[in-house]
Amino acid sequence: MTSLSDLPIRDDLRGREPYGAPQLDVPVALNTNENPYPPSEPLVRAIGAAVMAAAGSLNRYPDRDAVALREGLAEFLNTDTPGAGLTGRRVWAANGSNEIIQQILQAFGGAGRTALGFEPSYSMHPIITGVTGTRWINAFRDEDFGIEPEAAVRAVEEHRPDVVFLTSPNNPTGTALPLDAIEAILAAAPGMVVVDEAYAEFRRAGTPSALTLLDRHPRLIVTRTMSKAFAMAGTRLGYLAADPAVIDALLLVRLPYHLSAVTQAVARTALGHAGELLGSVDALRRERDATVEWLRGEGLRVADSDANFVLFGTFPDRRRVWQGMLDRGVLIREVGPPEWLRVSVGTPREMDAFRDALKTAIKESK
Amino acid sequence: MTSLSDLPIRDDLRGREPYGAPQLDVPVALNTNENPYPPSEPLVRAIGAAVMAAAGSLNRYPDRDAVALREGLAEFLNTDTPGAGLTGRRVWAANGSNEIIQQILQAFGGAGRTALGFEPSYSMHPIITGVTGTRWINAFRDEDFGIEPEAAVRAVEEHRPDVVFLTSPNNPTGTALPLDAIEAILAAAPGMVVVDEAYAEFRRAGTPSALTLLDRHPRLIVTRTMSKAFAMAGTRLGYLAADPAVIDALLLVRLPYHLSAVTQAVARTALGHAGELLGSVDALRRERDATVEWLRGEGLRVADSDANFVLFGTFPDRRRVWQGMLDRGVLIREVGPPEWLRVSVGTPREMDAFRDALKTAIKESK
Repeated sequence: MTSLSDLPIRDDLRGREPYGAPQLDVPVALNTNENPYPPSEPLVRAIGAAVMAAAGSLNRYPDRDAVALREGLAEFLNTDTPGAGLTGRRVWAANGSNEIIQQILQAFGGAGRTALGFEPSYSMHPIITGVTGTRWINAFRDEDFGIEPEAAVRAVEEHRPDVVFLTSPNNPTGTALPLDAIEAILAAAPGMVVVDEAYAEFRRAGTPSALTLLDRHPRLIVTRTMSKAFAMAGTRLGYLAADPAVIDALLLVRLPYHLSAVTQAVARTALGHAGELLGSVDALRRERDATVEWLRGEGLRVADSDANFVLFGTFPDRRRVWQGMLDRGVLIREVGPPEWLRVSVGTPREMDAFRDALKTAIKESK
Repeated sequence: MTSLSDLPIRDDLRGREPYGAPQLDVPVALNTNENPYPPSEPLVRAIGAAVMAAAGSLNRYPDRDAVALREGLAEFLNTDTPGAGLTGRRVWAANGSNEIIQQILQAFGGAGRTALGFEPSYSMHPIITGVTGTRWINAFRDEDFGIEPEAAVRAVEEHRPDVVFLTSPNNPTGTALPLDAIEAILAAAPGMVVVDEAYAEFRRAGTPSALTLLDRHPRLIVTRTMSKAFAMAGTRLGYLAADPAVIDALLLVRLPYHLSAVTQAVARTALGHAGELLGSVDALRRERDATVEWLRGEGLRVADSDANFVLFGTFPDRRRVWQGMLDRGVLIREVGPPEWLRVSVGTPREMDAFRDALKTAIKESK
């Protein structure tokens, strides 16, 4: 039998393990920052109708540039962030924000180039960086998981990366960045600056979006996703807003017809129901804030969160706490800095189960 | 205003134009090798129902490994090529065969590595090769667009490429490769050998598929698509069959959750209707053979075709013939060797329009 090590794979892939949270069938899954609220019956029917309408011509290739979808996404962003002033020409979409990130690195990274991020952060940034042949540089967040502008500028000036990743709110810590930190990094960075705003819709009142900086910064890219607040993880729709010239660059590397007619139809339908889909955001924010408070009340350390998850600790043996909770049917994520765990915010009933399981697991781990 | 050349894109992308056939709204589109027969009403309804069933949990991520879909694809290949003996473990799926090709190059190509193909062939092979930082090497087909095994082996031995692309039936020429040519190249190649069989279902009786070679060749990959014979171009579903170790390699580079729940549902539904979808293949084959015969009757040179398109020529000014046909509402493709044109096989009515437009355009171009 042939094994992976017998094949002529790239040297830097040798010995690697595939990425991914365990896909376990559990009663309470709070591990991948999904939105716990499924689409409503009317939305399910609308999606069915939209796909049936598209299905009659599935023998034809889809609109290669997804023009109508991009206009819908621009319109949504203008509602999310008044003053953003976006048009479809300044928005780009792909199969999940992972593909968005890959396209950015294919256009602006590659062999002999570097990308820099501030860890702990979204683990796919360095992985996709590596797959595209770009060299990854770790810079670090401060004790509270923020980014101190002066230290960040020093890191950027030292390494002169071709791409900088800023995640705000940050995954897995939940930390949002103030705009002055982003602007300081933009001023210092010689290349592209990507602000990954996958969780932006959950940010607390008064927290700004980097979308407001786009007009003045042609090397800024803000990425978003329909997987989280939009409750459309299964649809795989990531997108970005940037200068039109950035979109032109991505056209050189995107796979032609990368976005199926079905994906375009489903995503457009979801945008038409944005009000309903985002209706859960307020409830999730409240549940998040309550979770932060409860965890602190239990004497744990908890990172401030502008996202739909909470990072908490610290546990000398976090694996044991994680396993203890899993034994009670509650799956959270062992991710981020050592001794910390991350829980996605679920429904009130799921968070009850989380609290019960955590208390027991902590007791048992002592 | 910022222009593309102001941005820090990769040097090898500078001055490039985005890939893509013109997306024109014409009465008769015979330019992208689509299947002209749309899905039936019952299939459209089945797709709508399947997507509605999936839509209720679109807030959750899809099955990351698309297990059920891969089993369905394996079953289909075993019907297409008796004796293939495939299982889901030996099949992999992605968003179009372009993404399949990209994943192969990400795992086995990259900076410092090379991929070799025999041109004229599918133009995305060198483009995706370049995007992944792999160096492309042109080898050449013979006068009849076949691949002469001894010359091919010499090219492989000289360049020792990490990946070899063989397209059979070849796009844009329609030429299928005999298995002994493929086996000779497999014996000489130090790396992976990809046989791109996007058009295999259209092959003439007696033309074998490289699927029958998989058992003996762990470095062989056979790629397929649902875009052509399956009449599902809008769904974007490409796939491959290979040794399980090859799938393990691709797991290291694929983007997690790359294939949406909706794509998986639509593709599985299409597989359940494979008989109906592939029912058009015989009609298209007959129409193709008639087109070849008619073109030869007109005194033109025509490449033998095992695909759903026909390459014909030669025209000292092919652009003029192409434009003359477009002026009559018939869009074909200006692609492949200079002086040749490619027409996708459409419905009988579309091929009537093609013949009329071509006769007039040829007359006018003289």
